[in-house]
Amino acid sequence: MTTTDMTAAGVDDSMRNGVDTAALFATLDAVKQAPEAAKFQFRAHNQLVSGTHNRTTITDFFGVGEERAHERTFTFDADHPAVLVGQDQGPTPVEFVLHALAACLTAGLANIAAARKVRLTEVRSTVTGDIDLNGILGLDPEVRNGYQRITVRFVVKGDAPAEKLRELVEQSRARSAVYDVITNGVPVTIEVDTR
Amino acid sequence: MTTTDMTAAGVDDSMRNGVDTAALFATLDAVKQAPEAAKFQFRAHNQLVSGTHNRTTITDFFGVGEERAHERTFTFDADHPAVLVGQDQGPTPVEFVLHALAACLTAGLANIAAARKVRLTEVRSTVTGDIDLNGILGLDPEVRNGYQRITVRFVVKGDAPAEKLRELVEQSRARSAVYDVITNGVPVTIEVDTR
Repeated sequence: MTTTDMTAAGVDDSMRNGVDTAALFATLDAVKQAPEAAKFQFRAHNQLVSGTHNRTTITDFFGVGEERAHERTFTFDADHPAVLVGQDQGPTPVEFVLHALAACLTAGLANIAAARKVRLTEVRSTVTGDIDLNGILGLDPEVRNGYQRITVRFVVKGDAPAEKLRELVEQSRARSAVYDVITNGVPVTIEVDTR
Repeated sequence: MTTTDMTAAGVDDSMRNGVDTAALFATLDAVKQAPEAAKFQFRAHNQLVSGTHNRTTITDFFGVGEERAHERTFTFDADHPAVLVGQDQGPTPVEFVLHALAACLTAGLANIAAARKVRLTEVRSTVTGDIDLNGILGLDPEVRNGYQRITVRFVVKGDAPAEKLRELVEQSRARSAVYDVITNGVPVTIEVDTR
């Protein structure tokens, strides 16, 4: 986040950290009145390109009672690097998981800080995931397929004491959708149409 | 995957579905000889831009005993749509989770099919995730923050019977890193530096 953003945000007191807190609280109130509005379905559409290279488009979703679409279609390629027998046309799928976690915690932090009237001047994070590929390669039955551990290291600065900044991160963690998915797991159903 | 890709892949018998099966088996043999080579660390670096809009770069990783980098730096923006008080500068973090799952299952499917000498002519999938935002909004303590369920719907075509194609998808699921992360969970540690 740049200093320019921060200054611009300071013009209107309802805007903080780029968050429209008036809209945020109005949304909360609206959902309190109509809890069904909060039922969302997100979607990703993927297609094999070649080998480990495949491409996802993200555009449609359901929420607040109706079908919706992003303002544009987002397209992402995933692949393996050469050392994992790919062409490196995109990050690996497991790297996108780390991105999702960083993005969710950071968006939550910005919202929560704004709601609590804390101006953030810098929020950076590095997320690391340790994985032993003996799992997915099927070479060691004792090794899991996925990450063994994930670590998020935040640098957070703003106009609040260190303790308060840490509380904001903790509250973001406590309300993070991706953190919940990654730490607690989600049931996944796979259907296959071969017609 | 286009018909042209398929034809090109057919020129060399070690290439199948765009997968260099000779390299794939050589990698498996190399890791059997030196299991430590399979210890990888993947990383994502994220920075708050403004509000729910933040940006991740993915470039460096560790694997096969040394620090490595992708051939280029990949950059991804995440945001919320307007209906969730964002500017829609990118997909939501939870949508990237669906992308990661589709990408992982599809890359695995291409590798496994190639190893088992099945030529795939079409692999598409749609991944949906149902989420009730009463969780992350803190409005209902009974509702979890993350997805309640995720469904993957594959369309798979190739030169094998339907039963065989289903087996390939099942084997991909059984060896998928992202499927494991999402269904079984991973311990996540968060550190905060406020200096």
